[in-house]
Amino acid sequence: MDEKLKYLLEKLPEWLNNSSKEDIIISSRVRFARNIKGVLFPSVASQEELLRVDYRIEDVLRSIDIIEEIRIYPAWELDEIGSKILIERHLASRDLFKRKESAGLAFDKSERISIMINEEDHIRIQCIYENFKIEEAFIRLIEIDDEIGSLLTYSYKDTLGFITSCPTNLGTGFRASVLLHIPALFISGKIEEILKELISSGIIIRGYYGEGSEIIGNIIQCSTSQSLGKSEEEIIEDFKEKIYKIVEKEKKERKELIEKKYNLLEDKVYRAYGILKNARSLSAFEMIELLSSLRLGASLGIFKNIDFPILNELMIFGQPAHLQYKMGRILSQEERDYLRSLFIRKKVSEIGI
Amino acid sequence: MDEKLKYLLEKLPEWLNNSSKEDIIISSRVRFARNIKGVLFPSVASQEELLRVDYRIEDVLRSIDIIEEIRIYPAWELDEIGSKILIERHLASRDLFKRKESAGLAFDKSERISIMINEEDHIRIQCIYENFKIEEAFIRLIEIDDEIGSLLTYSYKDTLGFITSCPTNLGTGFRASVLLHIPALFISGKIEEILKELISSGIIIRGYYGEGSEIIGNIIQCSTSQSLGKSEEEIIEDFKEKIYKIVEKEKKERKELIEKKYNLLEDKVYRAYGILKNARSLSAFEMIELLSSLRLGASLGIFKNIDFPILNELMIFGQPAHLQYKMGRILSQEERDYLRSLFIRKKVSEIGI
Repeated sequence: MDEKLKYLLEKLPEWLNNSSKEDIIISSRVRFARNIKGVLFPSVASQEELLRVDYRIEDVLRSIDIIEEIRIYPAWELDEIGSKILIERHLASRDLFKRKESAGLAFDKSERISIMINEEDHIRIQCIYENFKIEEAFIRLIEIDDEIGSLLTYSYKDTLGFITSCPTNLGTGFRASVLLHIPALFISGKIEEILKELISSGIIIRGYYGEGSEIIGNIIQCSTSQSLGKSEEEIIEDFKEKIYKIVEKEKKERKELIEKKYNLLEDKVYRAYGILKNARSLSAFEMIELLSSLRLGASLGIFKNIDFPILNELMIFGQPAHLQYKMGRILSQEERDYLRSLFIRKKVSEIGI
Repeated sequence: MDEKLKYLLEKLPEWLNNSSKEDIIISSRVRFARNIKGVLFPSVASQEELLRVDYRIEDVLRSIDIIEEIRIYPAWELDEIGSKILIERHLASRDLFKRKESAGLAFDKSERISIMINEEDHIRIQCIYENFKIEEAFIRLIEIDDEIGSLLTYSYKDTLGFITSCPTNLGTGFRASVLLHIPALFISGKIEEILKELISSGIIIRGYYGEGSEIIGNIIQCSTSQSLGKSEEEIIEDFKEKIYKIVEKEKKERKELIEKKYNLLEDKVYRAYGILKNARSLSAFEMIELLSSLRLGASLGIFKNIDFPILNELMIFGQPAHLQYKMGRILSQEERDYLRSLFIRKKVSEIGI
């Protein structure tokens, strides 16, 4: 097994390594989709052409100095577990590895910035910040985009804006998204209604791992859909307003739970703790579900000693590829579930609640 | 709430208070059905007539001295929680309280012996012993039956034997039963096949509380059906043989679990421990299910410090009527589930595993 990503196992991405008490908005992400003028989109270009694009962008990234300790990985040099590690850390999309012989990835030390090469577009630049620091993420994104854009000629038309592979990204090529942890809305059953409202208001709902992933651990990814006809600032303003509304609904529902169903709530969070501390087999899905309950318990003050970075650590390092990478080999489902439970048990036993 | 049964909360029935390592056969019960000559069966006699029977039998029971510290309770003097306490302790059947204005109950200090008056028959004498001490139970049963029979004239015909209200009890009026804890057969899914075999071999299968009760906690009650044409000794011999066969099957299945599915087994028993130790709401059903897993874990040596009497204590005192009796008032379902979890949590935390 490839060792080049081993250092990632020593740390959390910065956006998960903070002890803010905000636990509803886990993170905010912004991204630009960009393409190089005069080159076909990755879905239609020849591999030779894409490789030229990849090398060219890698050169650009190596030449700029506004990204601290940037690491650049051609996708074809990553083995399966390595690729999955990057997906589990939200540094890469699943799609990036579908054309891995001509794709690439770069990210910085903090893991706030990642640049995908030859995914759906030639360039996808993303910035992830903790909680609702969406403006900070956007400022950083612009800096990087400006820098790269000064060294490459983007495909751009005055009438349309940035030209992208998928028409939904045309214009600004911009998208903002947040990961929301809204367990109370799930517990109360109001989530379905909320999701319907969000969708009809133009918000795209996805699961924990973004496009094509399922909703687990009471976490949803909400993202903007519009990229044409409005400025990024306007898109962010409108998005923030919608997200605040969900946050308010989640808070109201938590208050309800505390006031009217405290016993049910307490039972749920303590059971989660009891299972995490004792199980001898734990699927990634169940782990994330139970950690959601622990997070809720910590957030509502039922658990006094549980900090969010610890929960984030469990959530990241308990994932299948992280586990296998740590063990240095491919594991069967049964081995994974056993080793995950061992890892979680040890960590949870160290936390006093 | 009536206080007269309060002393029962201080102790376990003798048949549950032993530290034998045998955990498959929890207990063995034998009983005789008897009726008084010249009096109609309880289902058809007038209340006046039944009351006369009740007083007469109570007098007989008071006059004999082979039952240590016998306590006699007219059923109409017991309130609802009191009646349920006796059912939960297997001292009385649910049916006894259906005609409670003329029924009665007597039992001894050890709770091995209980005598129901005017249940389906005028007299039902039962002896319960721990594990597979069925012969000891039977010897005791005969002693008591002989003593009572010397003071009352039983309804008996030379051609038929003892006359009973239900034809299935005709002849010896005898029935033997055992409570079997067979979790491995449930886990492996072989239980259905086993139950079918047992039923076709003439064994009657019931739940934890006998007739009309459901199967919970992987515990089944197996009882004999035949009472005519064979002596009690022959019935017992045949019954023992059948029970040993199930015990062997359960043992074989446990060995399989240990050898081939140890992780699944370990996970199951530790999860049960984790939930019992942490839940803030626990139904009686779930409690008995989880205690079954703890019992299995203790029996297979996964838990070193858990003794069966502790598990029996939880199983008895966590039952709805016991809980309410202890609290001195009728509790709502929600209160019961909460207080049960509190009781269990405290006890389980005291046990080191």
